[in-house]
Amino acid sequence: MAVWSQSVARADDGALAVGGCDARALAAEHGTPLYVVDEADFRARARGFREHFAAAFARHGAQCDVFYASKALLSSQIASWVLDEGLGVDVASGGELALALRGGVPGGRITLHGNNKSDAELIRALEVGVGRIVVDSMTEIEVLGALAAAAGVVAPVLVRVTTGVHAGGHEHIATSHEDQKFGLSLATGAALDALRAVHVSPRLELRGIHTHIGSQILSVDAFKDSAERMLRLRADFAVETGYEMPEVDLGGGYAIAYTPESESMDVERASRAIADVVAQGVEAAGAGWPHISIEPGRAIAGPAGMTLYTVGVTKDVALDGGGSRQYVAVDGGMSDNMRTITYGAEYTAALANRHSGAPPVLSRVVGKHCESGDIVVRDVDLPSDIARGDLLAVPATGAYGRVMASNYNSVLRPAVVAVRDGRSRVLIRRDTMADLLDWDVPL
Amino acid sequence: MAVWSQSVARADDGALAVGGCDARALAAEHGTPLYVVDEADFRARARGFREHFAAAFARHGAQCDVFYASKALLSSQIASWVLDEGLGVDVASGGELALALRGGVPGGRITLHGNNKSDAELIRALEVGVGRIVVDSMTEIEVLGALAAAAGVVAPVLVRVTTGVHAGGHEHIATSHEDQKFGLSLATGAALDALRAVHVSPRLELRGIHTHIGSQILSVDAFKDSAERMLRLRADFAVETGYEMPEVDLGGGYAIAYTPESESMDVERASRAIADVVAQGVEAAGAGWPHISIEPGRAIAGPAGMTLYTVGVTKDVALDGGGSRQYVAVDGGMSDNMRTITYGAEYTAALANRHSGAPPVLSRVVGKHCESGDIVVRDVDLPSDIARGDLLAVPATGAYGRVMASNYNSVLRPAVVAVRDGRSRVLIRRDTMADLLDWDVPL
Repeated sequence: MAVWSQSVARADDGALAVGGCDARALAAEHGTPLYVVDEADFRARARGFREHFAAAFARHGAQCDVFYASKALLSSQIASWVLDEGLGVDVASGGELALALRGGVPGGRITLHGNNKSDAELIRALEVGVGRIVVDSMTEIEVLGALAAAAGVVAPVLVRVTTGVHAGGHEHIATSHEDQKFGLSLATGAALDALRAVHVSPRLELRGIHTHIGSQILSVDAFKDSAERMLRLRADFAVETGYEMPEVDLGGGYAIAYTPESESMDVERASRAIADVVAQGVEAAGAGWPHISIEPGRAIAGPAGMTLYTVGVTKDVALDGGGSRQYVAVDGGMSDNMRTITYGAEYTAALANRHSGAPPVLSRVVGKHCESGDIVVRDVDLPSDIARGDLLAVPATGAYGRVMASNYNSVLRPAVVAVRDGRSRVLIRRDTMADLLDWDVPL
Repeated sequence: MAVWSQSVARADDGALAVGGCDARALAAEHGTPLYVVDEADFRARARGFREHFAAAFARHGAQCDVFYASKALLSSQIASWVLDEGLGVDVASGGELALALRGGVPGGRITLHGNNKSDAELIRALEVGVGRIVVDSMTEIEVLGALAAAAGVVAPVLVRVTTGVHAGGHEHIATSHEDQKFGLSLATGAALDALRAVHVSPRLELRGIHTHIGSQILSVDAFKDSAERMLRLRADFAVETGYEMPEVDLGGGYAIAYTPESESMDVERASRAIADVVAQGVEAAGAGWPHISIEPGRAIAGPAGMTLYTVGVTKDVALDGGGSRQYVAVDGGMSDNMRTITYGAEYTAALANRHSGAPPVLSRVVGKHCESGDIVVRDVDLPSDIARGDLLAVPATGAYGRVMASNYNSVLRPAVVAVRDGRSRVLIRRDTMADLLDWDVPL
């Protein structure tokens, strides 16, 4: 059950349990749809990244820090778990910053990201003393310098570099530059210009450079290319200025498995391979070791989460080529999981409240929204006797589920609960009808 | 300016105004991003559908009713506009039902849709006496019959039929059946079985049949095919049972223009063409005229709305083939407009706070989210001097904008305001940081 979080098990009566909590009890207590986060699993993945990467870089006498990319899933309690496990937190807005701070994360352990931060977000980041602000444009370098001067502080800065390396899934390309909104191009010289601008600014401290090469990456080859380019940039800048930047952030993008057929990146093996390629890059560049950091998000939150749904309508639809497909409609859909319709993402699903001896049949899990593209799981075999009132669990929904949820069709967004040692507690509360009527302004 | 709502104009100083409200004043009063609905335009489109379709069917001595598909955009005030203009309201959840009722829409003018309604939604619909419940499966026919019996009422029912006709954009296909979650198949006999089941149920009143053939439809040919099939089904059922169902609902799907290059369906011409094809179908089926209804949503709300953004970072990115692209980052993005990333939707945009004499350059409007796919307008020419603090307006965002909005990256969802006669008022309020902290449950 590689696609399920570590504590998932089936009871003797066939019901699914997670974190020691019976799926039926969770549904009864919290209602469905329900996002369930396996706290021990989440913490183990966070700890695993920190320990494996620290150990792998220690073999080279170097250091690697891990920042949790909180855009994947964030609540103040989750931020506190991340802190407990020794990671920092990446945020990309004033809202994420507020939640991280509420979770007790010190400003110094927070990195502020974003291609278009507002003045208010930058001012707040300076107020709370975030450890690193990743600047993404010449505009931002000017604005941040002025805001830091007004606040009477010096802002710690990483410059986001577009290395031209792009990876994701099975593709890996390294071009001269990239047509995207993030970063400053290595190829055109924009990155070097930005480094110079930060370096000479009296109100900006040039801590280093940052890059992010993609999502759902399975091969370390892409990290090798980007690390080489980043370390060469750092060396070139040191030759020009005499300043050896202390930090290099290689970003995130570690792949997880969404279905039993798909692969995830093995963190321990990846840590060694990446430490080795960075070491080669350091050697090739002929400079001293920088402090390295990485930023996993999905790879920590994704596999730790599942969504529980209650089944409503089921129907068999005849297929053009013969045969039929069982449509299983659940009480949520594209409002709580936008990934299927947006990215063509694949998931799997399992009956969660009982054992079924009925034969598995080709099925599609759909939602309750007024849209035919409202699909949760495109293709999955489910028992032919699945029926109204059954519970269905969809694994690997911890990342980019609740954070991208909408109130489409005026549905109420589900709660997120943590489970651990047989107990559950709410991380993010469910929307209520009172919320809906509060957002609406009557005449 | 066909893609802009009717009251949009440029002042002498080049600023955009809508509903008599200056874009700069709207931004100052309500903040950005901001959804702006041109109330007179919305009402005119709603009224246009009602009047044109009524007139077109009256030429055949028949009647056509219009229901607004509120999934496109709903607030209680919007529901009241729709009611004022003589339309009914389609809802697809308990939440949409609550908002329509709050807007003063009588239950009898509401249609309840949905492939997977909950018991609670059906019970509420019976309580408030909705005019039509569109049943979508045999399961629902059983459940609704039992709930109506328990409530001591008779439920008015339309059966949703999958006719095998599918239209959308420029494609139009008519197959024997369709692999989708909605409806009961005409081809397999499932639709006829459902009609029989409703007809014999003592607690269900068979009002008629419903179908919906797609979105963004430009050609009436597809309506011709579906109307013929629907009227033949009605005639066949009358032959078998002696019962001539009084209603046929042909659904929605009327295309709108999102860019100056794209087309919209002309409502007056469409109304005549559809009335004619339905008349042919009535004649061919050899039965009396049913009461016809249609369900536009996007075609009423979409063109009436625009989104106002404030520009933050701009940067020029070199393209692989030579030349460059101006990236214009705004203070919203995929959280307030999911259509670009989800459907590959195209939009246009215009500078809204001033005139610019600078040459237009190839541009891309992107958001502030931590995702490279966070694009609002993929390709648009914008002045080369657009800069931080400028306002940008994106037209045709009235439908499927706010209703699909998320708090991705913990951003706060924008307000929706109505403008009319130089005044603005809030329809749906903006999220606040207090909301974000209220959803979050601290330790």
